[in-house]
Amino acid sequence: MSPRKIGVTELVLRDGHQSLLATRMATEDMVGACEDIDKAGYWSVECWGGATYDSCIRFLNEDPWVRLRTFRELMPNSRLQMLLRGQNLLGYRHYEDLVVERFVEKSAENGMDVFRVFDAVNDPRNMAKAMQAVVKTGKHAQGTICYTISPVHTVEGYVKLAGQLLDMGAQSLALKDMAALLKPQPAYDIIRGIKETYGEDTQINLHCHSTSGVTLVTLQKAMEAGVDVVDTSISSLSLGPGHNPTESFVEMLEGTEFTCDLDMPRLLKIRDHFAKIRPKYAAFESATLVDTEIFRTQIPGGMLSNMESQLKAQGAGDKVKEVMDQVPIVKADAGHPPLVTPTSQIVGTQAVFNVLFGPYKKLTGEFADLMLGYYGHTLGEVNPEVQAIAEAQTGKAPITGRPADLLKPEWDELVTQTKALEGNDGTDEDVLTYAMFPAVAPEFFKHRAEGPHTVAKSDAELAAEKEAANSGKAQAAVGTITYNVSLGGRTHQVRVERA
Amino acid sequence: MSPRKIGVTELVLRDGHQSLLATRMATEDMVGACEDIDKAGYWSVECWGGATYDSCIRFLNEDPWVRLRTFRELMPNSRLQMLLRGQNLLGYRHYEDLVVERFVEKSAENGMDVFRVFDAVNDPRNMAKAMQAVVKTGKHAQGTICYTISPVHTVEGYVKLAGQLLDMGAQSLALKDMAALLKPQPAYDIIRGIKETYGEDTQINLHCHSTSGVTLVTLQKAMEAGVDVVDTSISSLSLGPGHNPTESFVEMLEGTEFTCDLDMPRLLKIRDHFAKIRPKYAAFESATLVDTEIFRTQIPGGMLSNMESQLKAQGAGDKVKEVMDQVPIVKADAGHPPLVTPTSQIVGTQAVFNVLFGPYKKLTGEFADLMLGYYGHTLGEVNPEVQAIAEAQTGKAPITGRPADLLKPEWDELVTQTKALEGNDGTDEDVLTYAMFPAVAPEFFKHRAEGPHTVAKSDAELAAEKEAANSGKAQAAVGTITYNVSLGGRTHQVRVERA
Repeated sequence: MSPRKIGVTELVLRDGHQSLLATRMATEDMVGACEDIDKAGYWSVECWGGATYDSCIRFLNEDPWVRLRTFRELMPNSRLQMLLRGQNLLGYRHYEDLVVERFVEKSAENGMDVFRVFDAVNDPRNMAKAMQAVVKTGKHAQGTICYTISPVHTVEGYVKLAGQLLDMGAQSLALKDMAALLKPQPAYDIIRGIKETYGEDTQINLHCHSTSGVTLVTLQKAMEAGVDVVDTSISSLSLGPGHNPTESFVEMLEGTEFTCDLDMPRLLKIRDHFAKIRPKYAAFESATLVDTEIFRTQIPGGMLSNMESQLKAQGAGDKVKEVMDQVPIVKADAGHPPLVTPTSQIVGTQAVFNVLFGPYKKLTGEFADLMLGYYGHTLGEVNPEVQAIAEAQTGKAPITGRPADLLKPEWDELVTQTKALEGNDGTDEDVLTYAMFPAVAPEFFKHRAEGPHTVAKSDAELAAEKEAANSGKAQAAVGTITYNVSLGGRTHQVRVERA
Repeated sequence: MSPRKIGVTELVLRDGHQSLLATRMATEDMVGACEDIDKAGYWSVECWGGATYDSCIRFLNEDPWVRLRTFRELMPNSRLQMLLRGQNLLGYRHYEDLVVERFVEKSAENGMDVFRVFDAVNDPRNMAKAMQAVVKTGKHAQGTICYTISPVHTVEGYVKLAGQLLDMGAQSLALKDMAALLKPQPAYDIIRGIKETYGEDTQINLHCHSTSGVTLVTLQKAMEAGVDVVDTSISSLSLGPGHNPTESFVEMLEGTEFTCDLDMPRLLKIRDHFAKIRPKYAAFESATLVDTEIFRTQIPGGMLSNMESQLKAQGAGDKVKEVMDQVPIVKADAGHPPLVTPTSQIVGTQAVFNVLFGPYKKLTGEFADLMLGYYGHTLGEVNPEVQAIAEAQTGKAPITGRPADLLKPEWDELVTQTKALEGNDGTDEDVLTYAMFPAVAPEFFKHRAEGPHTVAKSDAELAAEKEAANSGKAQAAVGTITYNVSLGGRTHQVRVERA
């Protein structure tokens, strides 16, 4: 029997550098690898999402649409893939349906092929419109199950959600393990359950992070259960809070009943490319290598560091442990939402508030909205007492319908607002940029013509550092200081050196 | 059915810091973790071997026997385990049988329980004496299969070698993957083959490094094939050229047909201990994270850096690629020995000589000995033409018998030589130290009374470094200033901080 082919999605152009280098990589540091990525034989190339879009306009003075068109041009043979937050698009609130449609149309037009659509609370109604829009463009709509661990999350529940996504027109399903919590056995059980319920030809893609150190085994068991495509990142930008290394995945299949037909010499060239790039972004590197405590605390690394800085800002840096103990309580009271943008921030901030001011003495507006249904339906029941507090504090009534149904048409107004901004180019793409990042877009439009501002160290700076380190005079030799200057929500990099 | 229990050998006290921190860790940095290690439920605790012994007397001014007795005292409930190079003991040449016996007796007497006996060319005759000696002491003799990839190495061959080791009295077998070359499928096939040939109750221990990034999956497949014990290292000293993280291994078993019954709260304490210790040895850290090219080059990382420095010393630093291409040729001509101490050094140096002086124009004495059988019998046939060159250059005849049979009694002479050394304490342990490290022992004995010299940074030095870094951050924080800037009638808020 010839081995079964497993597809691979390469993550290095999006989630790889997002997880390891705080999403700071400039397009100019990616283009050199594109030809090899395009020809290596991947199922798809993930290259766009909320954080990369945000980083482009906030830190890099890059137009994210130009980046997308660049990828399209440089990788003509590849399926380009993006991560889309359902009704939130790439922003942090719900958008009215027409805005969702326009975004999907424009993304498809600019070259996107595969739309991985997810919702933080796994509410299918928050994914439906985006999925429909993708299907309408003729592109690939992938429905997503965000994986978490809780008393209400079961294999059967995930299998049921898979069915709802398929009913909505999903051409494939993604099982998304953003916190590296998915162990081999549940991965096997969920994938087998989906295949047995909806047919063996139901395409399932698996996305795992590697923080907990167990998920390469998860990929193995997922293959045995029938998974079709797995996500990996080239080894020079892998592991820790990132993903399993692509080349290791390829090698581990030797002699088994699986193959992935990737071109190893090209993979090694991609690896070498990013091995050279990575040191330029060392200032943004994550320090985590392996962390298995997330199985107990369920607090992803990024969320923990956020909470710590919130506490320090309040002079309560000694209360981290107390807050960590609050997180599971707040998560349970909110109906056990998966912790992923934006629920991780909402739950984490409320846990901080509970410790600083007493349990639910003060709610954040976002947490109140979560309790009242404005982020959608959570799988577990919300705590009715806390919901009553939310209602009392905000004067808003709880809702059970689809949150976006409450929104009024907003496209025309967004167009008007965008056209009033200096530097806007009159395109729908600019309207979408403004819609999703209203605080950052105006400054970006104004300065766009200046072209990309990299935040990477230059080759000359790296060489100087290396020389300084070698000569043991690191302090004296580097007289150049780089400042981040934030202005109107955008950050510019300014280098200062002695004249 | 209750889950099958998999034993775990904790490596952090030997191979963990050997692979990641160049074996430099001082005993004083280990003692604080011993109680938790002792009570965590491991099958055994690896804590002694050639490199740690060498490092003790060469770099740390520690008596390795004192270290062993310290472990024995602090871990009364644990099986202490060591790695023993068969007839080479912990040195780099063959020793006469009485020296081998004495070493094993003294090790057992000082507290060693499990002796993992290996030979670089997998010649059982080089392991026989050490195994017999272990059996005689009543301790646990573990016979070792060094894993490599070559045209002559087959699953059947490894299974046959396993039988020879069992015939020699091995109470268990170790499958030793020192270069992270063992993929899941061959691991499964070898272990299954051994179990089916010699009985399911044949104990098999699996030792994998993690350099290639695939071997946690290897452990998974090994369990499915029936492996009894696996080697891991606590997460804060894991991955890269080290090993798979202990806590990740524990977590991945949840819900499966396997368990390992380790005490997670204790594991986390051990992790925290070494997370604090690791920065003190940052100067010795390996930079490798993932390397899959070893599957093709079969050149372990340490061997490559050795060859590079040899070439540079000869002003031939540009010939690394040529040398890498020579290694597989030299390895094949030598009969495909596994590359592990000392064969990795011998093959690597000859590859360098072949590039510098022409193929086999000049042989090293060690390479000639390897070609002539003085390191034992290699699985593949040696190239007869190269063997003839070795014979001509050295005037030595090839041998086919057990190399140690040629040795004359040497114990009494070693005793006499040791007793002549300043600072020797008259014990057999000192004789053994001198026997194995004749170049280093005299200086060690002379200075032993001064007590341990750590090469770690002190807490004070680390604190000073941290303070310096923090004061940099503090400066940056102090230097974060928010300005209101009025420009063209509009006021912007500008925040400036050190990047």
